Amino acid sequence: MPEPEFATPLVVLDLTGIFFFAVAGALVAVRRNLDLFAALVLGGVTGLGGGMIRDVLIGATPPAALADWRYLLVPVVAGLLTFAFHGAVGRLERVVTLFDAFGLALFCVTGALKAVEYGLGPLPAALLGMVTGIGGGMIRDVLAGSVPVIFEGVLYATPALAGALVAVLLDRADLPFAVVATGGFATCLGWRLLALVRGWRAPLPKGPANV
Amino acid sequence: MPEPEFATPLVVLDLTGIFFFAVAGALVAVRRNLDLFAALVLGGVTGLGGGMIRDVLIGATPPAALADWRYLLVPVVAGLLTFAFHGAVGRLERVVTLFDAFGLALFCVTGALKAVEYGLGPLPAALLGMVTGIGGGMIRDVLAGSVPVIFEGVLYATPALAGALVAVLLDRADLPFAVVATGGFATCLGWRLLALVRGWRAPLPKGPANV
Amino acid sequence: MPEPEFATPLVVLDLTGIFFFAVAGALVAVRRNLDLFAALVLGGVTGLGGGMIRDVLIGATPPAALADWRYLLVPVVAGLLTFAFHGAVGRLERVVTLFDAFGLALFCVTGALKAVEYGLGPLPAALLGMVTGIGGGMIRDVLAGSVPVIFEGVLYATPALAGALVAVLLDRADLPFAVVATGGFATCLGWRLLALVRGWRAPLPKGPANV
Repeated sequence: MPEPEFATPLVVLDLTGIFFFAVAGALVAVRRNLDLFAALVLGGVTGLGGGMIRDVLIGATPPAALADWRYLLVPVVAGLLTFAFHGAVGRLERVVTLFDAFGLALFCVTGALKAVEYGLGPLPAALLGMVTGIGGGMIRDVLAGSVPVIFEGVLYATPALAGALVAVLLDRADLPFAVVATGGFATCLGWRLLALVRGWRAPLPKGPANV
Repeated sequence: MPEPEFATPLVVLDLTGIFFFAVAGALVAVRRNLDLFAALVLGGVTGLGGGMIRDVLIGATPPAALADWRYLLVPVVAGLLTFAFHGAVGRLERVVTLFDAFGLALFCVTGALKAVEYGLGPLPAALLGMVTGIGGGMIRDVLAGSVPVIFEGVLYATPALAGALVAVLLDRADLPFAVVATGGFATCLGWRLLALVRGWRAPLPKGPANV
Repeated sequence: MPEPEFATPLVVLDLTGIFFFAVAGALVAVRRNLDLFAALVLGGVTGLGGGMIRDVLIGATPPAALADWRYLLVPVVAGLLTFAFHGAVGRLERVVTLFDAFGLALFCVTGALKAVEYGLGPLPAALLGMVTGIGGGMIRDVLAGSVPVIFEGVLYATPALAGALVAVLLDRADLPFAVVATGGFATCLGWRLLALVRGWRAPLPKGPANV
């Protein structure tokens, strides 16, 4: 399999996903009244952090995001636009959430397949696909001083893990790349959108916790 | 020295340590009323995070935990059990703390020896042994939104550093593996249990801080 | 270019920068009434964390700080001194801030040049120079339970990025090392000191955020 990050049509998809992740990240900075630098860092970390964790863990250093200037430029542009026009961007949040789901579905698949390419087994590869999708947002939330939002019932990681697992299994069945990618992508996106529309939540602990 | 992680008797010990670390991690999630996914992540991070930091720093990628499915399965099982039966598990906390001390003593030794194997000097190797033991819990606390508990007087890191240092020094003296491992393990476990029983605490700053 | 970290004059500068970073880090621990271990960890992380992130990202493992015992000793000494004499150190905070600016200017340059040496392009190399300067302090703040101070208007990262960028560009122009280093160093230090003296701040978002 060729490096998926650098094939032209996939790069456009990839950069689009990063752009919307970065917008969501920069919005967090603005809403906590953090400065421009924070908007750029939280945007960049949200857009690129998951892939960087994956690349460091599989030994693919320097990470793809540091080897191609477009991957650095896109979150900077997203951060600047969000910082400048945060009022308008904030009102478009439903759109941002939609595109964010698209980015999640994309990253869980490309992340898992990259891990497979580096020789990881199906279970770790699926896990790293999920990490590619959710890792950036988790670092963002920690840097912004809060518990990751996906720890409090938001159904976000499970669709990413499911999409990654479907992609890995289809890939092991030696199906063509288009089938592998579409299967994983549709699984994650469908589940995530259903969760958004129907208000599905992850289970919370039952009964009082013995503190 | 062979890969200590994959020799059968050591693997059983290792997985036992990871299991109890993961139980302690998942309990933190339940007590903050976080969701099932958080219990799995905090369990996994507590059990595997320290070893992952060590492996990334010494260049042993992908980390051992991503190369053997048992290392992923154990924290998942621990997290699910803790989430489902958190009342019972919480009442057994003294048992969890005991086994956690056992895990700490084990990880500081295996972590330090792995660093030695990768060519690090005695001081950095001992430090990485300590990181293997305490790193996962520190990430867990940060993800759960609090200052690491071992920053507030809990005597936990010092025994780990001492155990790692003893193991590294005995290893340099070319003693047999059983002596090396037992010496480091007993140092850490003994100190940690004494600290628990006698209520020893790490020193806090004296006098008012000029804020 | 030889390894800049191990040439004698640069090592002394480097260790001096790490010392003052570590003092600033340990002060944070004391002011939150954290224990001695926290002072050592926050000191060590502030002094060495940025370089470690850089080294892990460019694949230079084990990081330089784990290959030379002096790099471990210096933050330990800084942490112990700060913990013991925090009253006096706290009153000298203006001096610490001055030396911290010196460390920032040094690390952004050495960090960027090391990234260039490992084959990164100008933009990622400059970014990693900035990360070398600011990364340790960011981890420190997160571990201490707060949002990084450089997210709330402190003008700290921009001078580091500027200094790193100047060094990278001068290096690409094949100028002698002394010119490259001095140019980057002076850019960062001058900007940072002006920001301190004149009270310059990074821009905050305008208008109310749609929460």
